[in-house]
Amino acid sequence: MPRNAIYAQSGGVTPVINASAAGLLLTARQYPQHIERFFAAKNGILGVLNEALIDTAVLSERELHQLKQTPSGAFGSCRHKLKTDAELKRLLAVFQAWDIGYFFYNGGGDSADTCLRVSELARAANYPLQAIHIPKTIDNDLPLTDCSPGFGSVAKYVATSVREAGLDVASMAASSTKVFVLEVMGRHAGWIAAASALASRQAGEPPHLILLPEVPFESERFITLVQDTVARYGYAVIVAAEGVKDTSGQFLSETGLRDAFGHAQLGGLAPTLVAQIKAATGFKCHWAVADYLQRAARHLASATDLAQAVAVGEAAAQLAVAGQSEVMITVERLSDKPYTWEIGAVPLAMVANVEKTMPPEFIDAQGFGITDLARRYLSPLIQGEAPPPFIDGLPDYGFWQWQLETPRLPRYSQEV
Amino acid sequence: MPRNAIYAQSGGVTPVINASAAGLLLTARQYPQHIERFFAAKNGILGVLNEALIDTAVLSERELHQLKQTPSGAFGSCRHKLKTDAELKRLLAVFQAWDIGYFFYNGGGDSADTCLRVSELARAANYPLQAIHIPKTIDNDLPLTDCSPGFGSVAKYVATSVREAGLDVASMAASSTKVFVLEVMGRHAGWIAAASALASRQAGEPPHLILLPEVPFESERFITLVQDTVARYGYAVIVAAEGVKDTSGQFLSETGLRDAFGHAQLGGLAPTLVAQIKAATGFKCHWAVADYLQRAARHLASATDLAQAVAVGEAAAQLAVAGQSEVMITVERLSDKPYTWEIGAVPLAMVANVEKTMPPEFIDAQGFGITDLARRYLSPLIQGEAPPPFIDGLPDYGFWQWQLETPRLPRYSQEV
Repeated sequence: MPRNAIYAQSGGVTPVINASAAGLLLTARQYPQHIERFFAAKNGILGVLNEALIDTAVLSERELHQLKQTPSGAFGSCRHKLKTDAELKRLLAVFQAWDIGYFFYNGGGDSADTCLRVSELARAANYPLQAIHIPKTIDNDLPLTDCSPGFGSVAKYVATSVREAGLDVASMAASSTKVFVLEVMGRHAGWIAAASALASRQAGEPPHLILLPEVPFESERFITLVQDTVARYGYAVIVAAEGVKDTSGQFLSETGLRDAFGHAQLGGLAPTLVAQIKAATGFKCHWAVADYLQRAARHLASATDLAQAVAVGEAAAQLAVAGQSEVMITVERLSDKPYTWEIGAVPLAMVANVEKTMPPEFIDAQGFGITDLARRYLSPLIQGEAPPPFIDGLPDYGFWQWQLETPRLPRYSQEV
Repeated sequence: MPRNAIYAQSGGVTPVINASAAGLLLTARQYPQHIERFFAAKNGILGVLNEALIDTAVLSERELHQLKQTPSGAFGSCRHKLKTDAELKRLLAVFQAWDIGYFFYNGGGDSADTCLRVSELARAANYPLQAIHIPKTIDNDLPLTDCSPGFGSVAKYVATSVREAGLDVASMAASSTKVFVLEVMGRHAGWIAAASALASRQAGEPPHLILLPEVPFESERFITLVQDTVARYGYAVIVAAEGVKDTSGQFLSETGLRDAFGHAQLGGLAPTLVAQIKAATGFKCHWAVADYLQRAARHLASATDLAQAVAVGEAAAQLAVAGQSEVMITVERLSDKPYTWEIGAVPLAMVANVEKTMPPEFIDAQGFGITDLARRYLSPLIQGEAPPPFIDGLPDYGFWQWQLETPRLPRYSQEV
C-alpha cells in the first residue's frame, strides 16, 4: 500500500536547495506504488508542527524544472530546533493524521539531529516511518560527505567576486583605495573564506590575506602583513569569515562598532577590521559585506554543485522506496583530477551534531591562506556554469504562492 | 602626417570601461594614416603627468578582445582633479614630447571638465590637439547622453542581487530575518538604487522600499513604512543609495556608527539604517554592502551596456580621425520598446560639471519607489547577457603587467 511523504527545508537556504527538492519530487513521481501524495511543509519543520502542508502535485513538471533554477527555499525554511518532547509528539501526530510514511529533511547538522530524533520517536511508538536526511549547507561543515550541496555555488560566487573586486582595487590603488575587505559567511568554519583563494592564479593576485574562524586573530601580526602586502603589490585584498575570533575567543564582530545608542553592532566584522587598518596605517580602505547576496546567487551556481544537489534529492527518493531509513545522503569523492564522485549514504547517528571545520593541513603556515591540498579539494567544487534562463534582463526565478491543505488536527497550541 | 595618441581612464572604474578601450584601440588600428603610436597612460591622468606611458601595440588582437571581457581599469585609473596651471602645462609638455595629436579621456563629469581644459590650453598655446571624451560612469549622472556606459551593468547586478536576496528573505521571514537592507553606490544620484526596482515583477515582490539621495530621509515615516511592509508581506527588502541624506542635508552614513576609537565610521549606511529599524521595531535584520562587488561584476554585464561601451570607444576613434575635437560621445535613444539607439556627440562645454540626478517624474509620490516612466527608461539598459569565458570555474579576466616607455622629459617635480 503506498503511503504519503513530507519534505521540509531547514536552516539557512542556499542557491541550490530547491534543486534537491526538484530532484526528490521528480524521482518520487516515478514510484506511485510507494509514494502516493507528496507534501512539502511550509516554512520547514514549523510547517509540520503547524500542519501547514502544501500538496506538491500542484507543481507541473515544467515548474519542477523552474524550481531547480530558483535559489532559496521555495517552500519556506526556518531556524527552529525541536526542544521538547511535546514538539516531537506533535510531529508524530501530524504524520499519523496524514499517513506519512516518508520524512525527507533537507538541512545541515542540527536538522540531521532532528531527523534522527523524529525517527527514533516513531520507532518507540511503533509508527512505521522512513526518515531520510538530504544534506544542505553553504557552510560545508557536514561530516562524512565530500562536500555539502550549496557550498560549491557560494564558493564560486565568492571567488568570482574577489577576482572582480581585486581588479577594481588594483586599477585605482596608486592614488585611491589601497585596502579592500570582503566579509563572507562562516561563523564556525572557514570554508567559504578559504574558497576565495581560488581567485588567485599566481602569486600577488588577490586575495592576499584570508581570515579564518579556525585561526585566532592577532591584530598586530595582521596589520604588519597588510602593510607588507601593500608595500609589495601596491594594494591588499582581504577576505574575512564573519566568525573570526580574537585570541580570547570573542567574535571580532562583537568588539568593534557601536550604534548611535551605544549598542554593540553585530555583523560588522568588515568595518571593524577597516577601522583597525585605517587607524594603524592611514591607508584608504573600502569594505563589502556580501551577506545574503552570496548564498542566494543562483546566477553564478556551480554546475558541479547543482548536479550534486539534484543527485542527493534523487537518491533520497530512491533509498526511501528501497526501504532505507535513518540515513543521510552523501557525496563520495572518487578522484580529484578529473573530479569524479558518486552518491552514498551514512547512518544519521554518525552525522548528527558533528561539525567539520577546516583541517590544519588545509591552512598554510602563516594562517592567512590555504595549502595546495586545500586548493586540490576546493577547486573541483566550483567547476562549470549553470546560469538560469534570463527574461527581460533578469533571472527568471519562480515565486510561488502556496495553497495549504485543510488541517486535520486541532490547532497546535505551542504554535511558534 | 600621422600623429600619436594617448588614452587615459579616469575616476571609479566600471565593468565595461575596458570594453570602451578595446573599441577605441581596435578601431584606431584601422587608421594608421592618422594615428601612428597609441599610448595608454598608466593610472589615468597621473600617467600623463608622470610620463608613465604604455605602448598599446603590445596588445594582440586576441588580447584586445580579452580586454573587452575584463572589468575595471586595465591601464589603471585615478581620482585626481587637475588643480593648477602647472599641471595643465605639464600635460601639454608631455603631449609635445611624444607628438600627441589625439587625447582620449574615458571618464565622468569631472574628467569631461579636465578634457575641455586641456584642449583649451593646447589651443591657447597653438598646439594642435584633438580632445575627445568617452563617457563612463556607473553613477549614470552624465548629461546629454541617454545613459552612461557602466551603469547598465551595475543596474543589472543590483536588480539581480535584490531578486535573489529577496527570495532568501522571503523563505525564512516567518521565523527569522524580516528586514534586509542592501546598500548600493550613488552618492549624489539615485540611479543605481532606482534600478533595483526592476527586480519586482508584481506588487509585493522586492524591493519594497528604495532610499534615494534625491529624497530627504525622514526616519519616522521610513520606520512606519517598514512596519507596514512587514505587516503586509511578512518581510521587507530595502535598497539604499549610499548618499541618502537626512532632512538637514547630512549624509546618513555619517550620523550613525562609531568605531572603537569613537571615530565616525563612514560608508556604514546599511548598518546605520538597521540599527534604527531594530531599535524601533525589534525585527531581526540583515544587511549587505555591495561596494566594489557591484561595479566590478563583469560576469553579469548587460549586453546592451557592453555594446554601448564598445560603440562609444569606436566612435571616439572615428570622430577623431574625422577631425572632431572637444566633444563627448553620447548614446541617443531612438525608441523605448524596442530599445533602439545610435551614437552621437555633444560639445564638451555643454557637459562639463553638469550632474544628472533622478528627475522628479521618475520618483513615485511616496518617495520610496520609482514610476512607470522610470521603469520604461531603465529596463532597456539591463537587457541581454554577455558573460565572459570561464576557465577552471572562474571568469577568465586579463591581468596585465605593463612595460613603460622610457621618459623623454625630466621627472615631474609635482609627482603625485
